[in-house]
Amino acid sequence: MGDKPSNPKGTNKTEIIMTIASKRGFFYPSAEIYGAKAGFWTYGHLGTRLKQSWESLWRNYFLGLSKSYFEIDDCNIMPKKVFEGSGHLAHFNDPLTECEKCHFRFRADQLIEDATHTNVGGVSAEDMTKILDDNKLLCPRCASKLLPVKWFNMMFEMKVGATGEDIMYLRPESAQSPYLAFKREFEALRKKIPFGLAVIGKAYRNEISPRQGFFRLREFTQAELQIFFDPDKINEAENWDFVKAYKLRLCLAKDAKEGKINEITCEEANKELKIPKLCAYNMAKVQQFYLSKMGIPEEKFRFRELDEKERAFYNKLHFDIELNMDTLGGFKEVAGVHYRTNHDLGGHQEHSKEKLEVVIGDKRFIPHVLELSFGVDRDVWALMDVFFKEETERTLFAFPAGIAPVTVAVYPLVNKDNIPEYSTEIYERLGKEFRVFFDDSASIGRRYRRQDEIGTPYGITIDYDSLNDNTVTLRDRDSMKQVRVKVDDLIQTLKKVIAGELAFEKAGTPVVAKAPEKEEKEKAYKPHLPLNKHEK
Amino acid sequence: MGDKPSNPKGTNKTEIIMTIASKRGFFYPSAEIYGAKAGFWTYGHLGTRLKQSWESLWRNYFLGLSKSYFEIDDCNIMPKKVFEGSGHLAHFNDPLTECEKCHFRFRADQLIEDATHTNVGGVSAEDMTKILDDNKLLCPRCASKLLPVKWFNMMFEMKVGATGEDIMYLRPESAQSPYLAFKREFEALRKKIPFGLAVIGKAYRNEISPRQGFFRLREFTQAELQIFFDPDKINEAENWDFVKAYKLRLCLAKDAKEGKINEITCEEANKELKIPKLCAYNMAKVQQFYLSKMGIPEEKFRFRELDEKERAFYNKLHFDIELNMDTLGGFKEVAGVHYRTNHDLGGHQEHSKEKLEVVIGDKRFIPHVLELSFGVDRDVWALMDVFFKEETERTLFAFPAGIAPVTVAVYPLVNKDNIPEYSTEIYERLGKEFRVFFDDSASIGRRYRRQDEIGTPYGITIDYDSLNDNTVTLRDRDSMKQVRVKVDDLIQTLKKVIAGELAFEKAGTPVVAKAPEKEEKEKAYKPHLPLNKHEK
Repeated sequence: MGDKPSNPKGTNKTEIIMTIASKRGFFYPSAEIYGAKAGFWTYGHLGTRLKQSWESLWRNYFLGLSKSYFEIDDCNIMPKKVFEGSGHLAHFNDPLTECEKCHFRFRADQLIEDATHTNVGGVSAEDMTKILDDNKLLCPRCASKLLPVKWFNMMFEMKVGATGEDIMYLRPESAQSPYLAFKREFEALRKKIPFGLAVIGKAYRNEISPRQGFFRLREFTQAELQIFFDPDKINEAENWDFVKAYKLRLCLAKDAKEGKINEITCEEANKELKIPKLCAYNMAKVQQFYLSKMGIPEEKFRFRELDEKERAFYNKLHFDIELNMDTLGGFKEVAGVHYRTNHDLGGHQEHSKEKLEVVIGDKRFIPHVLELSFGVDRDVWALMDVFFKEETERTLFAFPAGIAPVTVAVYPLVNKDNIPEYSTEIYERLGKEFRVFFDDSASIGRRYRRQDEIGTPYGITIDYDSLNDNTVTLRDRDSMKQVRVKVDDLIQTLKKVIAGELAFEKAGTPVVAKAPEKEEKEKAYKPHLPLNKHEK
Repeated sequence: MGDKPSNPKGTNKTEIIMTIASKRGFFYPSAEIYGAKAGFWTYGHLGTRLKQSWESLWRNYFLGLSKSYFEIDDCNIMPKKVFEGSGHLAHFNDPLTECEKCHFRFRADQLIEDATHTNVGGVSAEDMTKILDDNKLLCPRCASKLLPVKWFNMMFEMKVGATGEDIMYLRPESAQSPYLAFKREFEALRKKIPFGLAVIGKAYRNEISPRQGFFRLREFTQAELQIFFDPDKINEAENWDFVKAYKLRLCLAKDAKEGKINEITCEEANKELKIPKLCAYNMAKVQQFYLSKMGIPEEKFRFRELDEKERAFYNKLHFDIELNMDTLGGFKEVAGVHYRTNHDLGGHQEHSKEKLEVVIGDKRFIPHVLELSFGVDRDVWALMDVFFKEETERTLFAFPAGIAPVTVAVYPLVNKDNIPEYSTEIYERLGKEFRVFFDDSASIGRRYRRQDEIGTPYGITIDYDSLNDNTVTLRDRDSMKQVRVKVDDLIQTLKKVIAGELAFEKAGTPVVAKAPEKEEKEKAYKPHLPLNKHEK
């Protein structure tokens, strides 16, 4: 639909990753055999595991931050009234312009940004129409004139009930669920503040023209933690001492143009930038999640502050978390930290007539909300981008072992003489502790390459010697080194290597290759896909 | 909407469970503060964990059945063409009748079944109209005449794209996803048959009048495994020897009226009832899942065979898995085993023009499908029903430890003198291995009762002695017995007790109650809910 590629610099890497993703089963267009609609993707068997790894990392980390953080799981379809209360019916709009001749529709802000490299977040429809005119921007499809910019509501609407008596909507953000459940959970969790409600779930937006690729989706997954707190205590954080010297990587609104990153301790952020302690503390935790848990290199991470014009009017503070991705030509948003004040609970209290204020001690107030919000699919894409490596002999994803779709591949050297049976036994034993994959076809070199290509950190080869001495060859993806390990020690050894308690070289007897290791090149990214009928 | 309660016999138990569920945070009506729409529910912080436990039990068990079973994760919104190919646009209908006076609409089959106790699955609209007339059935709301029965499509429809150019639907069953992904995954997984694709995900049905409660939902979660196989090998099952003497609990179509259950070995089922080995094998595995993994008492489990009239025309074999639930007045469907032939892939091949046939050796064919399909929410409800116990002093859910929302509760006896700090340390240590909950308010007796009420199998009390000798009191939910255990042994001890390797009484030094144990009664099911505005 007239979109320019969103990654002019990274085209080649994007294409390689996309080809591997669809060929190997990370993800591919949804309902592809019918010609998929843009913005809808299926996670294949590897992508599903990668997504689940990320989700479980997120869940363990963020729910682990406090005894009073819990997860809920809600419906995607919600009544119309919810979005009157949340403001989405009135305000959740994209700027739309239509070609006066071919009647194709485009996102006005995207056309302007592509042409002028100016961010027009927060600019009015009238002003955008003026920018289109001033810059003589025409229909990218037929070069005719574009009509004035109008707002287009991005929610999916449907009729529910036999008489179609109710209009309902797919939630455009999972965050509404904790707000709606707030009263129930506050009471079930014994009326204490602060407490947090997390959701990992789907959200849906009828994007006017989702850019090609995996980054702007119409159906996507969010992971969000909504922290409800007393606004008088916003400058308190229980474990402040642990983070006060931690350096946040901030790109402040005033430095946004140059993209300058300042390393500022939480203490300085609090004292000099007036970022409240509760916010700064959670920003530190978010940054630690990306750097320590996901293994993102520090220089690829930043918080970008949105100024008043860019952020939603109810957000008092808004930092995007951005990762620098080659495939997207720079820093792109994957998550956000938003101080939403009492906008949400206040709106729902007003529209539902249900009291959402709380009484703590002798104080009555509507709790304020700090939101930590993550785009799960974007984070999955970031993993693919950041950990992808191209070497002379192979491509690989250098995923951390805790994230990789497969932790250990099991290879019977040959398919006879009891080797498959013994290999199956090992596969089943390892399967209780790790994500395992059994690969028994093609030469061992090709099998190594195939597992490198999908980012499997370790492989185990069972050969004739294994039957005699109960040892197997353990191979390391990154160094391609091999050691010989006793089958009975395998689980413990792998656990230690994964935990970083044991260097791979010391995990067993080094294997000296009898001949130079000839691992055949798997022609991974030659595009030879029969399908891939995603809408252009 | 004129529905009679679906559980006349179990009203009281249903009410108690529902009250606990909504008060304690298992589940409650979705968007309740706005007056929820029937058939939409939110899982609260306990229900989310219970559902996740069930899902992970299911995932580990069913994906563990074969090296070639994998999970995928797909969009809920799908193009119209998908449902032309699947037949849902033409056939996924409920019989609807409307009152000629008040214009309320009802499901004709439910009216007939309530009045005549006859199952009218597979009966035509004309014949249902005739039954309504013959039995002089009138509008349950205003007693006027009912109009002729018409078919009503149950899918939720929406417009996608800025011009609303595409009609798309929410998938009415998650099973379509594996069929659509079949070609990609077959190729990614190296063109082997049989292989299986699982999905745990949402599905949506615009039910005309969802019965009250948690059992017939408009938005629900399914867990499904689609096994693709060569129809010539339907009478082969790799591990047949392990199940051939295993007794299936079958209620055959011919015995359906009396509900007679026959215990028949897989071997007999295969030889005498002509149930192919692949089906019988998987039925055995499903039954073992319910009995051994979920802990459902044998007598509450059965397979009910659907006859030709009841089952979908493309299903060659169709067994419902039914559990006997007090709250629903008898055996109700929670899952199914369906032999869907090549109906699905065949339909999609025809409509998409994409070849979905495979070539194995020198044979070209469209794989057949055996479907194992589970209603996740129904299974969650079954857990609540089956494990609920009412005793003089308390109510409890006797959930197996692996399923309970909380495995271990941690109770500081008092909130001073370093006891909270030491308790937090223990809480954090245990949190790495178990689902933990920290409860520091109200008397210890009340806290015990509260955890019993939500089914927490173990509790740990930290008291003044703990500070001196590093021991804590470990309490068992079911027996209410208590033993004293060293903090350093706690994790190992609990693991052994949970695994059944160590009797609770032998887990530590018995605690002799100084005074008769006075555990206060938590008035769990006194209905005093401020909310609960679910549509009647």
